[in-house]
Amino acid sequence: MTTKMRSEIAEQPAALQATLDALLPRVGEVERLARETRQLLFVARGTSDNAAVYGRYLAEAHTGRLSTLAAPSIATTYRRRLDLDGVLAVGLSQSGRTEEIVETLAWAKDCGARTVAITNGGEESPLAQAADLALCTLAGEEKAVPATKTYTTQLAALAVLGLGLGADVDPGDLRRVPEAVEKLIGDPGDLDDVVEGLADKPGVVVSGRGLAFSTALETALKLKEACYLHAMGLSYADLLHGPIAVVDADTPAILVAAGDGPTLDGTVALAERVVGAGAAAFTVGGGPRLAAAGTAALNGPDLPEWVAPLGLVVPGQLLTEALSRRLGIDPDAPRGLNKVTQTD
Amino acid sequence: MTTKMRSEIAEQPAALQATLDALLPRVGEVERLARETRQLLFVARGTSDNAAVYGRYLAEAHTGRLSTLAAPSIATTYRRRLDLDGVLAVGLSQSGRTEEIVETLAWAKDCGARTVAITNGGEESPLAQAADLALCTLAGEEKAVPATKTYTTQLAALAVLGLGLGADVDPGDLRRVPEAVEKLIGDPGDLDDVVEGLADKPGVVVSGRGLAFSTALETALKLKEACYLHAMGLSYADLLHGPIAVVDADTPAILVAAGDGPTLDGTVALAERVVGAGAAAFTVGGGPRLAAAGTAALNGPDLPEWVAPLGLVVPGQLLTEALSRRLGIDPDAPRGLNKVTQTD
Repeated sequence: MTTKMRSEIAEQPAALQATLDALLPRVGEVERLARETRQLLFVARGTSDNAAVYGRYLAEAHTGRLSTLAAPSIATTYRRRLDLDGVLAVGLSQSGRTEEIVETLAWAKDCGARTVAITNGGEESPLAQAADLALCTLAGEEKAVPATKTYTTQLAALAVLGLGLGADVDPGDLRRVPEAVEKLIGDPGDLDDVVEGLADKPGVVVSGRGLAFSTALETALKLKEACYLHAMGLSYADLLHGPIAVVDADTPAILVAAGDGPTLDGTVALAERVVGAGAAAFTVGGGPRLAAAGTAALNGPDLPEWVAPLGLVVPGQLLTEALSRRLGIDPDAPRGLNKVTQTD
Repeated sequence: MTTKMRSEIAEQPAALQATLDALLPRVGEVERLARETRQLLFVARGTSDNAAVYGRYLAEAHTGRLSTLAAPSIATTYRRRLDLDGVLAVGLSQSGRTEEIVETLAWAKDCGARTVAITNGGEESPLAQAADLALCTLAGEEKAVPATKTYTTQLAALAVLGLGLGADVDPGDLRRVPEAVEKLIGDPGDLDDVVEGLADKPGVVVSGRGLAFSTALETALKLKEACYLHAMGLSYADLLHGPIAVVDADTPAILVAAGDGPTLDGTVALAERVVGAGAAAFTVGGGPRLAAAGTAALNGPDLPEWVAPLGLVVPGQLLTEALSRRLGIDPDAPRGLNKVTQTD
């Protein structure tokens, strides 16, 4: 039987295509709104927060705008106003109905920010209604609890946002994403080996840097949610700064990088260090150099670094779905979770 | 035999006293420098990054200034300039010699920021030399690899920074910290029970919110570094947004809160939910209400929320040291780590 999660992973090329078709013509609207701002504030939780990490690195590395991940408790728990003049606040919620995120975006507007909503909940969702501009993703309904197509389409919306902020990239790269994702789903690499390599392990470290850091965090979150694995998502710099101690024969690492870009060298060096410490290093993307440095390799997308995260997460989704079943868990409905999470 | 780590934990009251004596008279210098800025950017890694999380919540909740944790790779790997006009950048490094942090603080200055260094490395350290203003902590030499007194004195320096930013708090509270920490070291609560409760567990979730989130992150980092435990530090909102699935009979939670403040109610509710899920909830601080909701309790300091993190981390330090020895590890020199970490 095919799980809903597996079907929704396969729906991503079409979901990305539909979302890009809808949002690419709206770059000019983002541009006009952003003209009154000089920095960004992302408001999100969970999977959406991992998407925000992509948005943050894209905005800083490619548009030169300082970007912050909001602490929603300042708005909802401490109820303190900040000076947000000149700030473009971007709220992300797949459902568009997570009250904490809606409330924090409304607070940001009240504090002087311009506001954008990125949601799969449609123009009528509370989050879209609260924003100056709504970029609605067209992933369709997502039934499995672990978000897949709603996450990658969020990244597509963030890439469109980046174009509106004047990113120094080739917008044509975005058009290549659906096909690259399709290809990855058909040929993810050594998936069975990695599933077996993780099946008897209590934990795993997932690491990446820069734009690929978002992929590491999201892959770790998926493995926590649907495989109950103690998966820690860390930038490779943070990993070297302490938690490298946990990597051993019982705790493999999953290392993620785009096939190009300035973080590839460091990720290859980290794979060599992990293998040298006697642990398994499962690689995702990073081209032949990273694959050669690790113990088993999942393929990455044939995309330049700035859009690579839209494909780099796909092998981790496939891994989560397969490992979850291997462990006797139903990936569509892991324990403890509902589809719309309310936090306050 | 007493470990160096245990001795250094015990040296904290004196280290805090010396640091406060040196830095409290310098509030006016911070005030003058901060007058030209309207927001904060923290530059740090590892333990210092957890201190920065305290600085971030203190600045936002009590001074109304937007605060960002820097992504150093933008400076050191992507080599991209950001517009940092009006930003006060705060670099934290215990040694003052971590090149990545020194380089990123210099980059921030070059991008238009005013700069502060917080370091135990002295006025002559590269980080202090790179900054407009250096707040040097007086923790003395720290020999054990896991940072303890250099961390709590960093928090003291950040509290002084907060006063210079005009925090709406009673500065006199800071003077009560050394004695409150002394009392905690003498009476940490059910330490043996918590050590035994973690001794055969592969992982643990450590959670707190707002100002206490820094304590959760730092406690999790200590347990990763010196006990090789898969310890995940999460805000309680993020925990409910997905990873609550990993909490079970094999994965207890450590829940941290101050004895007062707006995040206490949520932390008590989380303890009840964890216990309801069949897992152990070890509480740190939070007064009698949080202790009653959990399965074993470590005491917190008798301090108001804004300075509570200076004491709340102490039970976690004592736990790490005792659990490390219980597991046959030398807490003074865990594998994989050096005292000055160089990342790029």
